[in-house]
Amino acid sequence: MPQSASTTTPTTSPARLMDGTALARRIVETTAERAAAFTARTGTSPCLATVLVGEDPASVTYVRMKQNRCRKAGIVSRHVALPAETTTAELVHTLTALSTDPAVHGILLQHPMGEHIDERAAFEAIAPEKDVDGVTLSSYAAMSFGLPGFQSCTPGGIMRLLDAYDVDPAGSRAVVVGRSAILGKPVGMLLLARDATVTYCHSRTKDLGAVVREADIVVAAVGRPELIRGEDIKPGAVVIDAGYNPGNVGDVHFASAVERAGLITPVPGGVGPMTIATLMEQTVTGAERQLGL
Amino acid sequence: MPQSASTTTPTTSPARLMDGTALARRIVETTAERAAAFTARTGTSPCLATVLVGEDPASVTYVRMKQNRCRKAGIVSRHVALPAETTTAELVHTLTALSTDPAVHGILLQHPMGEHIDERAAFEAIAPEKDVDGVTLSSYAAMSFGLPGFQSCTPGGIMRLLDAYDVDPAGSRAVVVGRSAILGKPVGMLLLARDATVTYCHSRTKDLGAVVREADIVVAAVGRPELIRGEDIKPGAVVIDAGYNPGNVGDVHFASAVERAGLITPVPGGVGPMTIATLMEQTVTGAERQLGL
Repeated sequence: MPQSASTTTPTTSPARLMDGTALARRIVETTAERAAAFTARTGTSPCLATVLVGEDPASVTYVRMKQNRCRKAGIVSRHVALPAETTTAELVHTLTALSTDPAVHGILLQHPMGEHIDERAAFEAIAPEKDVDGVTLSSYAAMSFGLPGFQSCTPGGIMRLLDAYDVDPAGSRAVVVGRSAILGKPVGMLLLARDATVTYCHSRTKDLGAVVREADIVVAAVGRPELIRGEDIKPGAVVIDAGYNPGNVGDVHFASAVERAGLITPVPGGVGPMTIATLMEQTVTGAERQLGL
Repeated sequence: MPQSASTTTPTTSPARLMDGTALARRIVETTAERAAAFTARTGTSPCLATVLVGEDPASVTYVRMKQNRCRKAGIVSRHVALPAETTTAELVHTLTALSTDPAVHGILLQHPMGEHIDERAAFEAIAPEKDVDGVTLSSYAAMSFGLPGFQSCTPGGIMRLLDAYDVDPAGSRAVVVGRSAILGKPVGMLLLARDATVTYCHSRTKDLGAVVREADIVVAAVGRPELIRGEDIKPGAVVIDAGYNPGNVGDVHFASAVERAGLITPVPGGVGPMTIATLMEQTVTGAERQLGL
């Protein structure tokens, strides 16, 4: 029986950690089994196309990490490296070609891209059925209305974490700090679809602490190191830190928050691994669906 | 200088009424001038296709009212009446044909439709550039991300009302009661885009009154007569009643709310007229855009 987040018993002992690393490992294992079954049945492996514009070192590292994880799970990756000076039109052309290539089942466009790129135009060139990173408007609308489609990977990973720890959002108050297109907005919509009362906060929110103190579930997704402090956490609340700032620091001040929360994600080892696991899971799902399996 | 909704002075005198009828009249006048200019320039009038499945009396009346308003503003309407037993596939076929007909600039699919119709599939058959009622996933995503596109008409009308009464949502706390695809969800996204801190409430919200009492702006959009009572209105708040229930009753208990609010929409004569005015305005905008004017 899932516990209701809003009735989590206040606690004076430190919070229980939500182990994203362990959960992600279990998801990847299941995904690898499904990938193997897909390969045995179709003679071809699930394939994720990764597209990178330029050579930003962090992006290069991140794409390589995703490729390595995919390979271990039996997902082939096809990498498309484009020069930094690639135009939006050229990028759209590449993504359109991948969208219509039957050997490609999922497409990951690494972002942020250069400022000269129209990021939205690029994302929209990804066919919704291959949008395993959940970045298209179509995927966002599907998340908002509970329709079939892929989830943005970090929001999807967060929902899987909540489920794994038996946190039922229904009837709880959830506060999302941040309103980005691939994190804040969609995670709020997924929580709303699960019957949470959802509040979106952002840089223009007055007295952020007071709003966060109302929350049974806090999702910090704003990219400001240690913005959320322990004194703003309602005792017993579930604290999801989706921030990842320089120095392995999240958006939550962990040392103080862990003393008040009921459940909390560490950084690293919380949300981060779940993002990649969700990407891989959705890539295999995409492959299965495209072949009608 | 727009006032901030969150610093509206508490008042002990009854709220000022937000006169949707008068504002809608002004918008329709401007729209009629634009329609006339369009007709003079192109030799053809802006055209709204209205599609009705079945003969539900309320829907018949509503469509007729929209057609009459359009005619007075110089917008031609083309009505497509389909029998109640029309299938989803037949309806999609009709909407696809209207979407590609260059003489049609906007499409209104009257809803709710019969239960045998896949409403989402029908909406999605409307081309986004003709979705002047703002019902497609594309329009919703555009509202969510501040991209070009049409607004759902009631949310769009509400934003026009706020602007006309110099209510600046930035930094305020907005509470939306209701989460429907064409009203609650999009109006929350439009308020968020204008920098309000937005909370979505619904049937599963615990202690709705306590949440509503936090609001500088309340949007009642749930379809439950007089659900929101005056004691739940923060003194001086802006109260937008988008409900319209049998007996000309809104979702707000007007008599008690008017004593606490700073600004309030009456029912009728508040949000209702703004919805049609927005539909007409967007139809002419659609016509102008499709002809590159």
